[in-house]
Amino acid sequence: MNYKIIGRIIAEILWIEAIFMFPGLVISFYYNELVAARAFGISELIILAVSGAFYWITRKAKRMLYAKEGFVCVGLAWLVMSILGCLPFYISREIPRYIDCLFEMVSGFTTTGASIVPDVEKLSKGILYWRSFSHWIGGMGVLVFLLALAPPDGNKGGFSMHLLRAESPGPSVGKIVPKMRQTAMILYVMYIVLTILDVIFLAIGGMPLFEAFCHAFGTAGTGGFGVKGDSYASYSPYLQNVTTIFMILFGVNFTCYYLLLMKQFKSVFTDEEIRLYFGIIIGSTALIAINIRNQYETIEETIRHAAFQVASIITTTGYCTTDFDRWPAFSKTIILMLMVIGACAGSTGGGLKCSRFLLLTKGLRRNIHYVLKPHQVQVVRINKRTVGENVLANTNAYLSAYILIIMTSVLVLSLDNFSVEANLSAVLATFNNIGPGLAEVGPTCNFAGYGVLSKLVMILGMLLGRLEIFPILILFSPSTWK
Amino acid sequence: MNYKIIGRIIAEILWIEAIFMFPGLVISFYYNELVAARAFGISELIILAVSGAFYWITRKAKRMLYAKEGFVCVGLAWLVMSILGCLPFYISREIPRYIDCLFEMVSGFTTTGASIVPDVEKLSKGILYWRSFSHWIGGMGVLVFLLALAPPDGNKGGFSMHLLRAESPGPSVGKIVPKMRQTAMILYVMYIVLTILDVIFLAIGGMPLFEAFCHAFGTAGTGGFGVKGDSYASYSPYLQNVTTIFMILFGVNFTCYYLLLMKQFKSVFTDEEIRLYFGIIIGSTALIAINIRNQYETIEETIRHAAFQVASIITTTGYCTTDFDRWPAFSKTIILMLMVIGACAGSTGGGLKCSRFLLLTKGLRRNIHYVLKPHQVQVVRINKRTVGENVLANTNAYLSAYILIIMTSVLVLSLDNFSVEANLSAVLATFNNIGPGLAEVGPTCNFAGYGVLSKLVMILGMLLGRLEIFPILILFSPSTWK
Repeated sequence: MNYKIIGRIIAEILWIEAIFMFPGLVISFYYNELVAARAFGISELIILAVSGAFYWITRKAKRMLYAKEGFVCVGLAWLVMSILGCLPFYISREIPRYIDCLFEMVSGFTTTGASIVPDVEKLSKGILYWRSFSHWIGGMGVLVFLLALAPPDGNKGGFSMHLLRAESPGPSVGKIVPKMRQTAMILYVMYIVLTILDVIFLAIGGMPLFEAFCHAFGTAGTGGFGVKGDSYASYSPYLQNVTTIFMILFGVNFTCYYLLLMKQFKSVFTDEEIRLYFGIIIGSTALIAINIRNQYETIEETIRHAAFQVASIITTTGYCTTDFDRWPAFSKTIILMLMVIGACAGSTGGGLKCSRFLLLTKGLRRNIHYVLKPHQVQVVRINKRTVGENVLANTNAYLSAYILIIMTSVLVLSLDNFSVEANLSAVLATFNNIGPGLAEVGPTCNFAGYGVLSKLVMILGMLLGRLEIFPILILFSPSTWK
Repeated sequence: MNYKIIGRIIAEILWIEAIFMFPGLVISFYYNELVAARAFGISELIILAVSGAFYWITRKAKRMLYAKEGFVCVGLAWLVMSILGCLPFYISREIPRYIDCLFEMVSGFTTTGASIVPDVEKLSKGILYWRSFSHWIGGMGVLVFLLALAPPDGNKGGFSMHLLRAESPGPSVGKIVPKMRQTAMILYVMYIVLTILDVIFLAIGGMPLFEAFCHAFGTAGTGGFGVKGDSYASYSPYLQNVTTIFMILFGVNFTCYYLLLMKQFKSVFTDEEIRLYFGIIIGSTALIAINIRNQYETIEETIRHAAFQVASIITTTGYCTTDFDRWPAFSKTIILMLMVIGACAGSTGGGLKCSRFLLLTKGLRRNIHYVLKPHQVQVVRINKRTVGENVLANTNAYLSAYILIIMTSVLVLSLDNFSVEANLSAVLATFNNIGPGLAEVGPTCNFAGYGVLSKLVMILGMLLGRLEIFPILILFSPSTWK
């Protein structure tokens, strides 16, 4: 294990974190929130000191990395980033207990958006910025950002490939262009442009600029932290619809936008994952709208709420315009299913991902053929290309791990004696990086009621979900450290 | 597709059904229940007439069968057997609606034990016999019974192999001895001996002989239909403990008993599935006992209830001595997990099966190794033997199908607007062939409240669960009939 390069990358990540945190200090001063400003200042110093120490220790590191180090590196980086990143919450005493600060920070970076803050409107502006911006950082990934910045000095042992693979969501990592560094840059440019577009559309609708930025960060990262207690309920229909559209856009595989820029329209419109994704959104919205028709006054309102919630849950954002915990069982069940399915691979969204769903159903169909005709060789194709057996095996292993983790987590949470529905939805909502669950953790409630053990399990669950299980499993697997 | 042999086998199955139903007629006469006797008589005539018609149509059938026909045959046989087998319930008017009769019959044959009967103590003795005996038939499988009886006249196209494979539970079918017919005979002899032992032990404890037989049938098939409204709650601790032990015994792979008879003790005691199965039983009983300690008066009572419920749920039997819906969330969550895990492969129990659990976790571990070291070939071993890749692929496909079916079923059930907990547990309890669920379908309630569509979904779910998905999927797959 090349410990030095791991330490070096963590040092660089902390550097980036300190830079990203800096606007929090500025905003705090601007709004004259001196306690928050002091907290940001102290946090910056601590993070820079730790980063500096790591730099010094690893000054002779060789930029060489294999698969195992790549996974360990990503897992560790996210842990350290969260442990130090939540210092402003703690030092400013705006969130009194450290475990809650860590929960909130991990929820931010993993773009979950599950909160333990009882009244978000009491938080200072600087803290609100940092909560929302953590979604933006976590959405596309901080290591991807690092790769986009890094000097193109060699790629020993598949250096950047391993980092990108460990941090990017989806069953197989698509390189947009042959060079990893350029891929990372293209991803971030598209990400920034889309975020700015979102800000502009929100500002046009009359949303104050600070709120527009916070919400755009939360939408872009498919996170869900907002600045109001009722999330999106009190905003105008225009602002709600803009957010519906942008949530859906950020749930699309970013490779598609690059293909659109390259005018390869056909390959986008025939993409099986894209078709499934939009098919599920339209189908679920229609079914829910019919089911909740009598809860709202006009058809426009019904469809708007249905579409917003569907977009919010399938992309694992977690904003809401209405309390879907009060919908009938059928609509709530659709919501639970959308939590599991999730957005497209290569987007900022979480969940199992539409492409995994495609792979699993196609793998199932192949197996039925195999049972009937054991002597015929069958391959699984997506977009007319054969899917490698290792991708299929990986997807199946992912599903097994997914279920084992959910079962274990629900069991631990059940010690706190909430309802089975609350526990199951809390685990699904954190592990799939969504945010709100049902019942005791529904859209109008928060996660503060759970005990420390449950919170730790959910913190781990959020990291497992965002990093797609393997980096965290490998980080905590004894055989990695032998 | 060799339609004739399928028709011929269905004719033979109906013959066997008519014979098995005959004691119902005798019992009804003996207890002077003339309405039930008449219902049994008419049902017998109808079944024999249908059987005769099938015989005549298929008189020139060749005993030759391939995998596809094997699955279709098993799927169809179980459907026809249920559709005609529930006639006594309907003709006697003891269950007024046909959909409920079918639900009860399928619940019987699939050894589920979920009931729509509001007061089981009002049923006549003949009907009680038939309900319980259907568990016994379904537990080991009626086609296995047919194979045990069939003349050893050739085995074209793997005739008996395909039938046994389609009807027997578990990821891979173990032949006990090279010849299928003998394997089937050995299985049934052990099954009969264990059932008689159960009857004897129950009778010693003072249970009336009729009740002892009914309960032994329900225990042997891991079904769960009883003769009392409170299931096992009012029986003596001795009778409860005897049933705990026999439930556990019937959840063990029957191959193990054969190995014990052959004095191969070591291979039984080192069997990984057996170890996992007993490990889960002991662990869950201990955890639940600690968790529910203050709900019962003595430690003996606490452990007895914990062990009974754990044995009942993991073997998917479904008897109960206490209302576990009133246990704390932690214990209820363990119960839900046991519902999913299920008993050993090659037993009469349902669920995912312990061996599939082993395969899934080992497959997951292999994949982590693969991610870290892509160039090393890794094999999965169980009991020191390499597991074939097709078995692993099949297990993974099974898990995908399992989850898709559960999600779809919960969605349909949610239209009836029960709680999410009730719907999820109702689907788990029927699909895994257990019986009681939680909340509105808990141990003290029944399934009568659901609508016709939900009942049809659960009927299909019970068949999918008992026949392990593929026979029913293949039966309803359009490509089968092309």
